[in-house]
Amino acid sequence: MARSCDRRPAQDRGPSALALPVAPKGRGAEYAQVVASELPALYKLGIVGAGQVARMTHQAAVKLGFTPRLLAEDLHDSAALAAPDAVFSHPDALAAFAESCEVITFEHERLDLGLLQRLEDDGLVIRPGTRTIRAAFDKMHQRRVLLNRGFPVPVFSEVRGPDDLLDFAGIYGWPLVLKSVRSGTPDDRGAWVVENAQEALRVMSEQAGRQLMVEEYLAIVKELVLVLARRPGGSARCYPLVELSLDEGVIREIRCPAAVGHQVATQARELSLRLADELDSVGILAVELFLTTEGLVVNELAARPHNAGHGTIEGAPTSQFENHVRAVLDLPLGPTWATAPAIVTINVMGGLENIDPMVNLPEALSVEGAQIHLYGKQPRPGRKLGHVTAVGDDIAQARALARRAESALLGRRAW
Amino acid sequence: MARSCDRRPAQDRGPSALALPVAPKGRGAEYAQVVASELPALYKLGIVGAGQVARMTHQAAVKLGFTPRLLAEDLHDSAALAAPDAVFSHPDALAAFAESCEVITFEHERLDLGLLQRLEDDGLVIRPGTRTIRAAFDKMHQRRVLLNRGFPVPVFSEVRGPDDLLDFAGIYGWPLVLKSVRSGTPDDRGAWVVENAQEALRVMSEQAGRQLMVEEYLAIVKELVLVLARRPGGSARCYPLVELSLDEGVIREIRCPAAVGHQVATQARELSLRLADELDSVGILAVELFLTTEGLVVNELAARPHNAGHGTIEGAPTSQFENHVRAVLDLPLGPTWATAPAIVTINVMGGLENIDPMVNLPEALSVEGAQIHLYGKQPRPGRKLGHVTAVGDDIAQARALARRAESALLGRRAW
Repeated sequence: MARSCDRRPAQDRGPSALALPVAPKGRGAEYAQVVASELPALYKLGIVGAGQVARMTHQAAVKLGFTPRLLAEDLHDSAALAAPDAVFSHPDALAAFAESCEVITFEHERLDLGLLQRLEDDGLVIRPGTRTIRAAFDKMHQRRVLLNRGFPVPVFSEVRGPDDLLDFAGIYGWPLVLKSVRSGTPDDRGAWVVENAQEALRVMSEQAGRQLMVEEYLAIVKELVLVLARRPGGSARCYPLVELSLDEGVIREIRCPAAVGHQVATQARELSLRLADELDSVGILAVELFLTTEGLVVNELAARPHNAGHGTIEGAPTSQFENHVRAVLDLPLGPTWATAPAIVTINVMGGLENIDPMVNLPEALSVEGAQIHLYGKQPRPGRKLGHVTAVGDDIAQARALARRAESALLGRRAW
Repeated sequence: MARSCDRRPAQDRGPSALALPVAPKGRGAEYAQVVASELPALYKLGIVGAGQVARMTHQAAVKLGFTPRLLAEDLHDSAALAAPDAVFSHPDALAAFAESCEVITFEHERLDLGLLQRLEDDGLVIRPGTRTIRAAFDKMHQRRVLLNRGFPVPVFSEVRGPDDLLDFAGIYGWPLVLKSVRSGTPDDRGAWVVENAQEALRVMSEQAGRQLMVEEYLAIVKELVLVLARRPGGSARCYPLVELSLDEGVIREIRCPAAVGHQVATQARELSLRLADELDSVGILAVELFLTTEGLVVNELAARPHNAGHGTIEGAPTSQFENHVRAVLDLPLGPTWATAPAIVTINVMGGLENIDPMVNLPEALSVEGAQIHLYGKQPRPGRKLGHVTAVGDDIAQARALARRAESALLGRRAW
């Protein structure tokens, strides 16, 4: 069974110096009691975004006694359906939202970095900080930082026009990977494998207006993710390395532990911890890795709880969501080892039939031992509507259970 | 390791005939999507009460994709702090609340039974039904029902005045147990052991206006609780029998499994399942039992998730809260076996110092592997503010961990 690596400094720190009681900033009656008991002000947590990641983070916070505030865009956002204190507004309202919180965290990186930087300079506690968010959001910046610090990355180049692309192809040949410089959405990762100049130019014209970059196409043996939690000051804990199956660039299945040797797992952990230190990451950092015949290469970073860590709800003593909350509030991290020999998570994706998995709950819940998580989202083709996790003695057993439940939710026969 | 007993009928049933799509009853925009995907109407769940039991039930419902509505009394109620759709009103507003739901369930039994009966007669789906609630709420009624059906209960009698009490004492001697006929609150269970006539008359005068009953004082070897979940139609599953430690009538510690022989555990299960059938219970039924030198005796019933089942959040594949939601929505029940050899839960009670356990979170979260649950409640002496669960290889190990975390939360040295 995989165990976490634990790198606590000799003395584990309590809440930081910032965690002093302060008067509430007009948040209404619900904060009266917080002040009465002189809670550290940092416990006034705001979460920017209200998708499923915010929904599960909110639940983890409630378990510990917190009532985070959400910045949602819509009444129907997954987390807004499940949390009482949601502010419905365009993400531009970030500054006003931040005013009402003492610390803010994020469920995605698609943010106005200039604004964040100004808020941070003004003393708002932003966790992770802008340095980390910039690296997760801007992939050119990320690649440059990683390259400069000696991390293994694919060969890459900016694409300002067709010439840049064709020059790159002249050196590295086809196929190539075109990518959006800006971090994608859960439903559009913004990466395209192109086989030749014609395909490449078509993608470029379809994605006109989007800043693009190009990378060499690597022969990928496995796609892996190392999820870790890190506190301000550097205490960090890694979850076991997991392995992904993707379908058209979208994560389908997550298997824990990854079927790799001890050396690869150790290298992934060490590389990711070093990366977290370099970026001074706080909260969950998910490091997406390619295992190639040449070794590990960093694919992408996410500075938030990640789809690859959803199985930690049942498969670890402390879920990635709880450890994210603990980390951004500078509280001691919880253990991260795997609580079962095999944990498989399968995403429940909206199909062309637009079936609402809620309708099939009776069938899915009769799959004994499968853990069903539905996000309350309106079904749409390709949309992540939920996930199913199963634990077991081996991957095949856990996967069979998870697949049966996922098929039941979508009204299909099991794979 | 204890495993659940499972009594599914040959064919596990889907949602009942009542589970047909119907038009929403003016619940605003959030129900538009429910109708669009033609969800069974029973998924419009209302929970009466907004304490910690409702808070944890709400979380379990959200996991499955539901957004239950709460009937809270106050903005500061534990569940109201964590759920978006809370109606703040006096419990008398039950009829109006029920109008907005398709099925309602409860976190306590202190309800207007006449009103519930009228609502049920009018076709509202109330789960558990009034028959079960009456037995949990009115202890004289409960004792009579149990006695008539041959369940082991203490000798009891109604107390209309001092003569009734003294007559009873003349036959059964002292000490005796005086009890409130009506179900108590989490902070006042309404039971008093009295050693003599003087003490008894003092309690009677202090509790004037409260309907009382008297019971023989039993020499109790252990206090046990059997928590079970039961669907409409009779499918039922038992959690492993647990053992309680109480302090002045309030639950302090819950140990799973109970340190009793196989025969007692089996008898507790069979007795409880039979009782659930007799009452046609739906949802969680918690059967509090005394183990005496004469055998098992039924102490009390609770027709809702129970403090004795809080450890199922970490210690079972399906928590009592999720199985309560599944049961009241007539969905298949999940497995109930213990996932660890030993599970200990300790209640975090407000002390005279009125310390808010939130303030001590940094210390408590550094107790490696303890699961901290805080309810967001304002501290008050004797009030349940949270609980701590620890799993382990044996009771001593799990208990030591839970006690360390509980002591940390209350700013005390470990016991």
